Amino acid sequence: MDSALVVFSGGQDSTTCLFWAKQKFNRVVALSFTYGQKHAKEVEQAEIIAREAGIEWQCIDASFISNLASNSLTNSTMQMDTEKPAGSPPNTFVPGRNLFFLSIAAVVAREHGIKNIVTGVSQTDFSGYPDCRDEFIKSLNQTINLAMDYQFTIHTPLMWIDKCQTWEMADKLGVFNIIRTQTITCYNGVIGDGCGNCPACKLRKIGLDKYLKIRKI
Amino acid sequence: MDSALVVFSGGQDSTTCLFWAKQKFNRVVALSFTYGQKHAKEVEQAEIIAREAGIEWQCIDASFISNLASNSLTNSTMQMDTEKPAGSPPNTFVPGRNLFFLSIAAVVAREHGIKNIVTGVSQTDFSGYPDCRDEFIKSLNQTINLAMDYQFTIHTPLMWIDKCQTWEMADKLGVFNIIRTQTITCYNGVIGDGCGNCPACKLRKIGLDKYLKIRKI
Repeated sequence: MDSALVVFSGGQDSTTCLFWAKQKFNRVVALSFTYGQKHAKEVEQAEIIAREAGIEWQCIDASFISNLASNSLTNSTMQMDTEKPAGSPPNTFVPGRNLFFLSIAAVVAREHGIKNIVTGVSQTDFSGYPDCRDEFIKSLNQTINLAMDYQFTIHTPLMWIDKCQTWEMADKLGVFNIIRTQTITCYNGVIGDGCGNCPACKLRKIGLDKYLKIRKI
Repeated sequence: MDSALVVFSGGQDSTTCLFWAKQKFNRVVALSFTYGQKHAKEVEQAEIIAREAGIEWQCIDASFISNLASNSLTNSTMQMDTEKPAGSPPNTFVPGRNLFFLSIAAVVAREHGIKNIVTGVSQTDFSGYPDCRDEFIKSLNQTINLAMDYQFTIHTPLMWIDKCQTWEMADKLGVFNIIRTQTITCYNGVIGDGCGNCPACKLRKIGLDKYLKIRKI
């Protein structure tokens, strides 16, 4: 396979995907976004990770997303949901986020002559976000192909694995320590093991603890 | 039917759709975009048309679109294609434009509690733009529904009619003169009958001349 563009936030999942793509493709471009997220530090960290891995890095200002709909990731006056409420996504859901990220990724990929797009979304631990589901990604793949008359393939290496298996994948790719210490998954922007209290940290820690037990054996 | 959001550029097609929606729905919101288009005057005109019709009007800055890929509508150093080149869309094609406009429209509609989205795209006179085709719109409708777990319906009243029939529709809606004198279809931003030379003006004029002949009879 020739070249791929990775949607890259600098978190555990997309960083694992970045190194997965680096192994699989000859050329990799990492694409990050600023969109008014409170933890803008994750973008700086994304750049550091990509540059240290010798991967082309590009950042797009997608701050229009924060102005479209209210959510607790970009609105600092809202208290973040720590659990998914019944019948609706948590207020950390940014409506249309993956739709915009992947659509922008497609336009940028096409400009580079790239047909493969990689994203770290996962249905397994999807936390109530509808735009992390496999059926959404498959539908979007068809939509972007029709929108631009171009043959994109969206790759989702983490779609059906849980956080424990994501740690295992990182370990097999030889980047366990980079993922553990350099990535930011935490909703409060704390690097590595994070704040420990937000839903993202809890999910990451459960997976890590589970994997560390298996790893020892 | 209750309420609808119309993607509204202030051109012939979307203005006809605006009045179509006004007749069909109790509440209509018109949504315009700035995206670095050379003829930004069309947005001012869109606001005037909407306000005079007593329709809520909203404008979103989508200028990120111009930075993603080169095209002659937003890049003033490029000469516009006056005809569709063989094997590719004309360079007036802004990659992903309708994908972004309709995705943004969906997020904004959902914030208003609106489920109906109206767009003036037409496959009949599609001028080589892949994102004006019916199969794209149908695929996108499914994608936005999955992205936000919400039941949108995208309406495309002009999909299967030509420019002559669009003039006829405007006439039946009682807004023939508004469309003829107040809208901007022209790529060079000239109101009403336009510059007469760009592909958009030519297409509009052919339809108008054809309709005026029928109308007299």
